[in-house]
Amino acid sequence: MNASMRNVFRGIRTGQLIRSIASVSAPQRANYALLHDSDLSFFDRIVGKENVRTDDLDPYNTDFLKAYKGTSKCVLFPSSADQVSAILRHCYSRNIAVVPQSGNTGLVGASVPVYDEIVLSMKKFNKNFHFDPNAGVLKCDSGWILEELYNRLSPEGYQMPWDLGSRGSCLIGGNVSTGVGGVRRLRFGSLHNHLLGLQVVLADERGSTVNFGSDMRKDNTNLHMHHLFIGGEGQLGIICGVTVCVVPKPTSVQVAMLGVKTYSGCREILRLSKQHLGEILSAFELMDSEAMRCLKENEKLDNVLTSDPPFNLLIEVMGSNEEHDKAKMEHFLSVTLEKGLAIDGVLAANAQERAYMWKLRKTLPLAPLHDGYVYKHDISLPMDHFYTLSELIRERLKGFATRVLTFGHMADGDNHFNVSAKQYSPEIASKLYPFVCEWTVEHGGSISAEHGVGQERRPYARLGKGYEYELAKVIKKQFDPHCILSPYKMITY
Amino acid sequence: MNASMRNVFRGIRTGQLIRSIASVSAPQRANYALLHDSDLSFFDRIVGKENVRTDDLDPYNTDFLKAYKGTSKCVLFPSSADQVSAILRHCYSRNIAVVPQSGNTGLVGASVPVYDEIVLSMKKFNKNFHFDPNAGVLKCDSGWILEELYNRLSPEGYQMPWDLGSRGSCLIGGNVSTGVGGVRRLRFGSLHNHLLGLQVVLADERGSTVNFGSDMRKDNTNLHMHHLFIGGEGQLGIICGVTVCVVPKPTSVQVAMLGVKTYSGCREILRLSKQHLGEILSAFELMDSEAMRCLKENEKLDNVLTSDPPFNLLIEVMGSNEEHDKAKMEHFLSVTLEKGLAIDGVLAANAQERAYMWKLRKTLPLAPLHDGYVYKHDISLPMDHFYTLSELIRERLKGFATRVLTFGHMADGDNHFNVSAKQYSPEIASKLYPFVCEWTVEHGGSISAEHGVGQERRPYARLGKGYEYELAKVIKKQFDPHCILSPYKMITY
Repeated sequence: MNASMRNVFRGIRTGQLIRSIASVSAPQRANYALLHDSDLSFFDRIVGKENVRTDDLDPYNTDFLKAYKGTSKCVLFPSSADQVSAILRHCYSRNIAVVPQSGNTGLVGASVPVYDEIVLSMKKFNKNFHFDPNAGVLKCDSGWILEELYNRLSPEGYQMPWDLGSRGSCLIGGNVSTGVGGVRRLRFGSLHNHLLGLQVVLADERGSTVNFGSDMRKDNTNLHMHHLFIGGEGQLGIICGVTVCVVPKPTSVQVAMLGVKTYSGCREILRLSKQHLGEILSAFELMDSEAMRCLKENEKLDNVLTSDPPFNLLIEVMGSNEEHDKAKMEHFLSVTLEKGLAIDGVLAANAQERAYMWKLRKTLPLAPLHDGYVYKHDISLPMDHFYTLSELIRERLKGFATRVLTFGHMADGDNHFNVSAKQYSPEIASKLYPFVCEWTVEHGGSISAEHGVGQERRPYARLGKGYEYELAKVIKKQFDPHCILSPYKMITY
Repeated sequence: MNASMRNVFRGIRTGQLIRSIASVSAPQRANYALLHDSDLSFFDRIVGKENVRTDDLDPYNTDFLKAYKGTSKCVLFPSSADQVSAILRHCYSRNIAVVPQSGNTGLVGASVPVYDEIVLSMKKFNKNFHFDPNAGVLKCDSGWILEELYNRLSPEGYQMPWDLGSRGSCLIGGNVSTGVGGVRRLRFGSLHNHLLGLQVVLADERGSTVNFGSDMRKDNTNLHMHHLFIGGEGQLGIICGVTVCVVPKPTSVQVAMLGVKTYSGCREILRLSKQHLGEILSAFELMDSEAMRCLKENEKLDNVLTSDPPFNLLIEVMGSNEEHDKAKMEHFLSVTLEKGLAIDGVLAANAQERAYMWKLRKTLPLAPLHDGYVYKHDISLPMDHFYTLSELIRERLKGFATRVLTFGHMADGDNHFNVSAKQYSPEIASKLYPFVCEWTVEHGGSISAEHGVGQERRPYARLGKGYEYELAKVIKKQFDPHCILSPYKMITY
């Protein structure tokens, strides 16, 4: 989330708490120890007085969406694995609960305390940075801001392989713990593709510092345990160091928007795009007409397509040769028009037009907030059902909701449909949940594509799961024997 | 390994046992039960008499390289998860050790019994096949041969995202368990990028069938445990079903070979290739002059570069537009020549020339076998040290070895250097080990890049590892409580 987006957001939401999927209360506070003065003195000695904060904790207790608020009395700012180890040893022995926090830009309440867990802020954990431009391998502390990493890699001709709205303030360690997807997954692959190794401190008796994976692109000498931390929401250990392989920075970007009459047309265009744009296809985003109407009414943003099509596709390519990329894109667009799949289309002529197209897409998570209250979603669905759920919800909420708008990373099957209303309504909530979650799981989808489980989706985390949920608990217990890390979230006892 | 390669290999190695890294004896046979007639009767009832084999077991007891030979008395051919579950329940209760076996094409003795473990062959486990061409997601049984999957996907415009020499006989489940890298990793990413979900049967009291991950490209609702099975060598559970996202099939392939004077020149060319060939770069293979000499002397294969350069680079691109790809490749080649980095270069003019260039590279694992005995390696090294080890070994073995030749997936840091001699010599072995392994680990590399640990590298599997090895043991114990799966290999108690 960059600064300007944050401001817009705060402007709208001041003082207001929103909850999306679950207005279900959290589990009762578990039997963790209360913080004593002697604990604070201990922390003072480990990280220094200036890195122990005990007042003005609202920004650390409240999540980005202002949907969840904890009551932590203490935020610590470690800057080395040794400090983290000493803190966790202490918390283990005292049975004090801890929640790690990176940029605090998550959308499911995973990075804030539920009760009075102490907050381990990773914002000052950003000293080490090493980049090998020959191997294209970056090894750095977990507290680096994603954008800073972009800036440092750029002069070397490289970039980070993932990108997301919060890149101006999210931290790389939080990216891993959240298991971010974002808008470049299509081009560069998942986080699992890029993560080579992790330095992690465990909340065990010794505060063990463990190196999972390695700095090599290939290493088959142990179980690949670092992958457990992707989307692990800080429940297994504290990520202190991250090794990733980064990608050559593309020198050419092309963006187009296509208007399409039917969802099945969008699906055919997706398939054609893989065929014609294969190696350079970097984004394939769907926005329906209700989404565009919302942008117009709430944000005064006009669609670039004048035909008001039922479906709008934003298609981006990134490559190393502008002439080639443009030729491919133009050919692809003409094929979609010739085949009658697209009824309308615009290829951005310059950086300004590209930025405007992306502005439409990037404003969508914020636009419905003007309506009053928003029920947000981040659901993976099989291609056949990608839009069916939106249609069903529109039907179910006729006369109740202000609007049901759909946008998302269609190529990843990731549907961010939003339901807006004047205010929170238990009636709408009861029409939405558990229906949305159950329908999604029944149809082979996932109730959390990329945002995680956190507090928001915890009540539904076990839906459709069998013994694999029990195994997650078993693994959690091996890594975090007293279960003091990020309690009451994805894995709950 | 395709049929012809296999024949060549068998022709050379008839009756001969080779061992590479470790001539260290295996751990003692653990206290597993001996097989009784009543066990065989039970298996007969579960999979049918025709799927219980008790004679002519040599092909199942002996590994592909004929380096390891077990003494199993029984091979089972299950074809459903229910059958596997019943078998594992029985083996759990009777404490019978089991080794899963796929194509048996592995190179470290991971897929054959060490003692009398029963063999669970997955060759007949290949009924289910489902492909969604819109999502590009394949869900199939684990016993499909990789090449068959290529053949089935091709008419849909897709292909598997990895490729390796044994594609004609290796199985997809074995690919996952081995954590294969292969020659397309550079273009399409690692197995971790493609694997979405697994159906696994555990060797626990219930023979639990567990679904890890999902069929979605994005799913953040649980720990991503399916990644533990990549390179897990069958030590955690039996993989029955695999879900992977596949890739659009490239329509254009270009291959070139470059002659380079110095290793640092190769490194610079690698960096330039990322810049100029970014999204289409699909292979960057290094072969040194000794490798080329070996091809000439042992296989009568001439280098396509006439200048006899110290280093030969095979560079391949794969894309969706031949004209564009050719233009990029030609420009890149001219840059390397203009900068004086390459002293020689050939761009393949047609499929035949491309095939010949690849023949040079693909024959290299076999060529030194004519010398008599070969010590093979598969080591990851940081770019700075990629060739240093080869030079050191050449120096150490002067007067002892017939030759020290180097080839490998340079862009992945994966060095397959081979040492050949007239016969096995303890003197050469003692000069090689533990030196090679210790030097590699000291310099931040991995002693197994893509082949795995198996029996061969077990003695060195813990090198440089701390608590992360203990954690692997803990996880193993949770998944396989009696430790009956693939004993005496990567994770050893």
